[in-house]
Amino acid sequence: MPAKNAFYAQSGGVTAVINASAAGVIEATREHPADIGTVYAGANGILGALHEELIDTTAESAETIAALRHTPAGAFGSARYKLKGLEENRAEYERLIEVFRAHDIGYFFYNGGGDSQDTAHKVSQLGEAMGYPVTCIGVPKTVDNDLPVTDTCPGFGSVAKYIAVATREAGLDVASMAETSTRVFILETMGRHAGWIAAASALARERDGDPPHVILLPEVPLDEQRFLDRVRQSVEAFGYCVVVVSEGVKTADGRFLSDQGTRDAFGHVQLGGVAPVVAAMIKNHLGYKYHYAIADYLQRAARHIASATDVEQAHALGRAAVELALAGRNAVMPTIVRGSDSPYRWHIGEVALEAVANREAKMPAEYIDDSGFFVTEAALRYLRPLIAGEDYPPYRDGLPDYARLRGQRVAKRLPAFGT
Amino acid sequence: MPAKNAFYAQSGGVTAVINASAAGVIEATREHPADIGTVYAGANGILGALHEELIDTTAESAETIAALRHTPAGAFGSARYKLKGLEENRAEYERLIEVFRAHDIGYFFYNGGGDSQDTAHKVSQLGEAMGYPVTCIGVPKTVDNDLPVTDTCPGFGSVAKYIAVATREAGLDVASMAETSTRVFILETMGRHAGWIAAASALARERDGDPPHVILLPEVPLDEQRFLDRVRQSVEAFGYCVVVVSEGVKTADGRFLSDQGTRDAFGHVQLGGVAPVVAAMIKNHLGYKYHYAIADYLQRAARHIASATDVEQAHALGRAAVELALAGRNAVMPTIVRGSDSPYRWHIGEVALEAVANREAKMPAEYIDDSGFFVTEAALRYLRPLIAGEDYPPYRDGLPDYARLRGQRVAKRLPAFGT
Repeated sequence: MPAKNAFYAQSGGVTAVINASAAGVIEATREHPADIGTVYAGANGILGALHEELIDTTAESAETIAALRHTPAGAFGSARYKLKGLEENRAEYERLIEVFRAHDIGYFFYNGGGDSQDTAHKVSQLGEAMGYPVTCIGVPKTVDNDLPVTDTCPGFGSVAKYIAVATREAGLDVASMAETSTRVFILETMGRHAGWIAAASALARERDGDPPHVILLPEVPLDEQRFLDRVRQSVEAFGYCVVVVSEGVKTADGRFLSDQGTRDAFGHVQLGGVAPVVAAMIKNHLGYKYHYAIADYLQRAARHIASATDVEQAHALGRAAVELALAGRNAVMPTIVRGSDSPYRWHIGEVALEAVANREAKMPAEYIDDSGFFVTEAALRYLRPLIAGEDYPPYRDGLPDYARLRGQRVAKRLPAFGT
Repeated sequence: MPAKNAFYAQSGGVTAVINASAAGVIEATREHPADIGTVYAGANGILGALHEELIDTTAESAETIAALRHTPAGAFGSARYKLKGLEENRAEYERLIEVFRAHDIGYFFYNGGGDSQDTAHKVSQLGEAMGYPVTCIGVPKTVDNDLPVTDTCPGFGSVAKYIAVATREAGLDVASMAETSTRVFILETMGRHAGWIAAASALARERDGDPPHVILLPEVPLDEQRFLDRVRQSVEAFGYCVVVVSEGVKTADGRFLSDQGTRDAFGHVQLGGVAPVVAAMIKNHLGYKYHYAIADYLQRAARHIASATDVEQAHALGRAAVELALAGRNAVMPTIVRGSDSPYRWHIGEVALEAVANREAKMPAEYIDDSGFFVTEAALRYLRPLIAGEDYPPYRDGLPDYARLRGQRVAKRLPAFGT
């Protein structure tokens, strides 16, 4: 009996290292041709399976697959597309199984966050029920660091490093000009529901008085007066103030601070960004000259400054997913298990998909200090190893030389899916 | 007769490599103790001279000075402080000469843009007139790349590299998600008067269809309808559109696009940023999901991704300034002279300060293509070598290990300056 093929898909917001996980999956399967046949990748994630848009990874050279390790974003395309419950979306789940059956796919590696692990879990259940069992293994990924059980999620360490480096560099800039120019600098980070990314900026501080001076976390409702006092104290003490603000910061009544209903001159709702709202507070109440940066996708795409630890873990988790499948495991996800903080030790563990599906890991309360404007030493101990090490991509003509896939499609065998 | 001392000051907006020029100046003087004594650096630039706040660079070890080469921002403090004409600001110019005389300073190295070269030129003239001749040498610096005569300005190559890398990385991110998420990504760059920085994003494009798809330059008044057409064409052809917009883009009637008079719900003027204005256009007229990033200070402080060419030139120009002084030159500035584009060859030239003072170099019209939304091959030929090479800072605990100065002040010898 020839080996079953595999399906690999990327899901949700992409990261600097999700392709490193893809490389791990593909490289590990290539080492076991007797056990796993062709790896098909979904064009645009799970949509690739629904629409039978399969990318034949055997058309990519070993060099190209290796280059995925240093290439950011989703090389096969990712999708924000959530399959809901089996009842509501039964036709879609069945379609997945049909496509898998048509292409002799017996393994499903789903590289994503909590929603994706939920989908992988359901596919595993439905395949069983439909008489076409599929080995479903999750591969964790999310810059938000909000998956439970695993110590961290690939993608987070690199965005954390980016934000810490940016805070240190911009902090030096502001410090050197504050006498005659900008007094308050605001850096807006991602993190709609948890403050992990903003918290990582704290790693930039080496000594008292170093930036960041204030971190605004989604976990702490903003007390405007206390915040303004803190900014003023920082400017008075150090000459300047660096504020790192998570996009998810909320007011005391639970609304996103960025949802201020601001409108432009034509009455259009003003578009996004919590940084300008914070800047306006400072301008209107303290009058300091300010500047702000909104890193947006730059932070999660910044493979050029990726954490070597993160890259290594992303790659190792991709490989581990294949090894779990080869070991006969099903409906599980490999995890990072921390052995110790310093020296940092970690190994790969395993968790049942149903234990991670649709569950969000919050930042522990003991990681936020009493003021609510900074993190604790416990948080720093947790965060520090995650940004350790540099893993530079190769450069050509002054720019990172990222992988380009041939992206060869597999001939379709089924009628179009009628959604 | 003991050697005269030197005064070094940083001026205006800081860069990723202005400290490399400082290292060049200080290292070169240390090699000639018989000719130049102590280098005093101005605390907060020229203000340090006016207020007699002098930093004794001899208190910094050779290792610390060498580390300035890889440290961004202004290690001695910079200032946005322009001395105007000799008539209007005579007292300040005279104060400079008095401070120089009090500390036996015979050399003035001024590291800045056009305004600073003007100041250095005037100090040279006034010293002569006051019977206290000072050798005044400019050291070029500006991310805006707008100094005349010199082929490029230290600081520009690194910000150009940052923007090109960011465009490539964010472009991959958007491309991989466009099917179900963001269609249009907008990156706002610095460049209030010239489009050099935004233009550098074009280096990210390797093949037709690669980002950036549209570049909005201050040199080209925005034609909103043509812009929107171009964005729609890009989304239809490639599935997405990356727009790089210079903060200095203007409307047809000559106003900054960012000055839209937008107000928040409380009637406060909405604060800054051209990216949200462009985003609103796209949202309101095309309806595409958008995201935007505002790099702000991150771009000019990003020493972690500095151009090796830029670092080398910044350092060489600092050294060259000292060599010009030792050769008896006065009121001049060392420049970069380009020998050839490819292979890239350059050497150090020299220009009279009066030929660069207060003159802005514009981006040549032949660098902008007929559409007005992209640059020409001539521009790319010019830009390409400026971002070449990587020059990574050392890292400790996952973060760049930047220099910290002792910053030891020199005892004051004069009464406070009464402005």
